[in-house]
Amino acid sequence: MTITARAFHLVSRPQGEPSEDNFRLVTSTLPDPGPGEIAVRNLAISVDPYMRGRMRDAASYAAPWQLDQPAQGGAVGEVIASGSDQVPVGSLVVHNLGWRDYAVLPADQAAVVPRQDGVSPTLYLGALGMTGRTAYVGLLRIASFKPGDIVFVSGAAGAVGSMVGQFAKLSGARQVIGSAGSPAKIDYLRDVLGFDSVFDYHDGPAAELLAQAAPDGVDVFFDNVGGEQLEAAIGRMNLHGRIAICGSISNYNKEQPEPGPRNLGLFISSRLTMTGFLVGDHSDIADEFTRTVGGWYASGQLVARETVVHGLENTPAAFIGMLKGDNTGKMIIKLD
Amino acid sequence: MTITARAFHLVSRPQGEPSEDNFRLVTSTLPDPGPGEIAVRNLAISVDPYMRGRMRDAASYAAPWQLDQPAQGGAVGEVIASGSDQVPVGSLVVHNLGWRDYAVLPADQAAVVPRQDGVSPTLYLGALGMTGRTAYVGLLRIASFKPGDIVFVSGAAGAVGSMVGQFAKLSGARQVIGSAGSPAKIDYLRDVLGFDSVFDYHDGPAAELLAQAAPDGVDVFFDNVGGEQLEAAIGRMNLHGRIAICGSISNYNKEQPEPGPRNLGLFISSRLTMTGFLVGDHSDIADEFTRTVGGWYASGQLVARETVVHGLENTPAAFIGMLKGDNTGKMIIKLD
Repeated sequence: MTITARAFHLVSRPQGEPSEDNFRLVTSTLPDPGPGEIAVRNLAISVDPYMRGRMRDAASYAAPWQLDQPAQGGAVGEVIASGSDQVPVGSLVVHNLGWRDYAVLPADQAAVVPRQDGVSPTLYLGALGMTGRTAYVGLLRIASFKPGDIVFVSGAAGAVGSMVGQFAKLSGARQVIGSAGSPAKIDYLRDVLGFDSVFDYHDGPAAELLAQAAPDGVDVFFDNVGGEQLEAAIGRMNLHGRIAICGSISNYNKEQPEPGPRNLGLFISSRLTMTGFLVGDHSDIADEFTRTVGGWYASGQLVARETVVHGLENTPAAFIGMLKGDNTGKMIIKLD
Repeated sequence: MTITARAFHLVSRPQGEPSEDNFRLVTSTLPDPGPGEIAVRNLAISVDPYMRGRMRDAASYAAPWQLDQPAQGGAVGEVIASGSDQVPVGSLVVHNLGWRDYAVLPADQAAVVPRQDGVSPTLYLGALGMTGRTAYVGLLRIASFKPGDIVFVSGAAGAVGSMVGQFAKLSGARQVIGSAGSPAKIDYLRDVLGFDSVFDYHDGPAAELLAQAAPDGVDVFFDNVGGEQLEAAIGRMNLHGRIAICGSISNYNKEQPEPGPRNLGLFISSRLTMTGFLVGDHSDIADEFTRTVGGWYASGQLVARETVVHGLENTPAAFIGMLKGDNTGKMIIKLD
C-alpha cells in the first residue's frame, strides 16, 4: 500500500510574529519501516510555545528547525506497520515527529501509552503527557511546593498553567492565584478550575493587580510569561519564596530582548531563589507523575480542557494563535 | 570613672552617593552597665556595603537606621565593665554597636572570641567573622560549589570577594575568575591571591571581558556587584550553573532601580538557578566555618589583607570610600 504523507516544512524564519508563510505543506510517499522502525498514523499533534524558539537559527536546548525540512513536535498516533517486536501494529504511541500526518521512526523513539476508556489519546500530549509533567516537575520539584504555600501561576489558562493551578489545589495550597488574558479565561479559572484569586493582566499594572490578588504574598511563583508579571511576582514574594521559570511567552516574538526585572535586589532581602528547568531532565519522575496525576484524572478531580483544531492544514494557524493566547487549556490539532 | 563616648548619628538620608554631612559625631556620657550588660571599648569597627541600604527609610531585612540615633554595624572590642558572669572584664567580643568608640549592651548580644597570637582582633570582623562567613555560606551552601567547578566572583578584591576566590581555590576549583576596578586590584588578585584569570570591568563590555577570561564558561557565579556583570555572567553560565546573589554594590547609590538582565531566557535553556541569601540565616554553619577557615588561616594558606583607616572620626569617609571601591580586602576603622 502506498501512503502519501503530508508534513509542514519550515521554509523561512519569522521576524517577530510568525505567519503561515513561514510554513509549507509538502507531500511525499511514506517509506516502509525498516527493521526496528515503525510507521505511525498520527491521531493528534501538539503545538507548544517552546516551538517559537526552534524557529530561530540559534543554538538552544532544542536544535533549531532546519529550513526546508519537516518541523517537529509532540504527536500521538497509531502504529500501522512495524519492524519491531516491541511495538506491534495497533499500538498507541507518543513520539516527536509532529507537524505531519504520517511518520516512520525508530521504535525506541516512541513511547507506548495505554488505550483506556474515558482517556482520549490527546491527553497524552496534554494533562497526562509532557504538558502535565512540566507542570508537575516545576511545581513540586523545582519550586519545592509544600502544603500551605500560596501559589501564583502566570498564563494560568494555558496548557501548563491550568495544570499547575489544579495540582497546587489538589496538593494542599493555601491559596492559588492565576493570571490570564481574557474575561472568558478569568471566568474559567475561577468557576471551572477553582482558582482562589484571578486577574486579567490587561486590567492594569501587574504589580497592583497581583497585590490585590495576593494580600498575603506569594510563596511559589510558576512563570510561563516573563516580563512585567515576573517583576510583579518578585515584588510580591514572601521570605524564602521560590520561582520556577518554565517559559516567557511574552518575549518569544520579540526580536530584541527586553530588560529584565528592576527589583532583583529583593532576591537578597527576601532570600529568593529562581530556577529555570526543562521537563526532559526529569524523566525519573515519570512513574510518580503517572500514578499521581493519572489518579487525579481517573477520579474526576482534574479538568483537562482542550482547544481543538481539526485538520493538519490548520496547524500553523493553531500555532500562531496559541502564541497569542487563542487557546484555553491545551491546543491540540486532531487529524482524524 | 566617667567615660565620654562618641557615636556617629545619621542626621539626614542621602540622595545618591552619601556624604559626610549625612553623619554627625555626638558625644555622651557612657552609662554603667546594668545587670546582664557589658560596657565595651571598641578596638575596631566595620563598614560594609549593606549599610547603604540601612540609610534608606525603607523596610528591608535590616531595619533602617533612625535619624538622630547612632548608626550600627559590626565592631570588635574589649569588655571594660561587666554586669554579666558570662562575659568578664577583659573579654574580647564581637557585637553590632559599631560607629562609636564605646558601647553598653546586653551580654547575650555579644559573641566572645578568642585572643590568639598572630590573629588580629580585626580578623573577627573580616576573614574570620561575618565577611568570611558570608563568602563561605554563599559559595558552599547557596551555590553548592563542588571541586572541579569554574567560579567567577565579581568585586573580587573586596572583603567578601577576596575570600570567595581563595575559598574556591582551596576547595578545588578548576578555575577561579575575578573582576575588580583598578590595575592595582587586578595585580593583587593575580599575584597575591592566585586567581587564575582576572579582568578590570572598566576595560570593555563585561560580556566580552568575561568571555575571554572564562573560555570554558562558569559553573558558579558569586555576585557582589549586580548590573552589567550579572548579565554577563548569566550569558556565560554552563548548564546547571548556580548564581549566589550576595550584593549589588553597583546599584546601592542609585535612586531609581536599573532594569535587570536581558537574558533571563537562559535560565530555562541552561537550567540556571539564582539564589539570594543573608549570612544571618546560616548560624548553624559557625562551627564548620571556624574549623575550616580558621584552619586555613592558621596554616598560612589564607591572605586576609585589610585596608585600615585610623580614628573614629574618619568612619564616614571610610564608608563612602568603600562604596567607591577604595578598599582592597576588608575596610577596617581602628580606634586604638
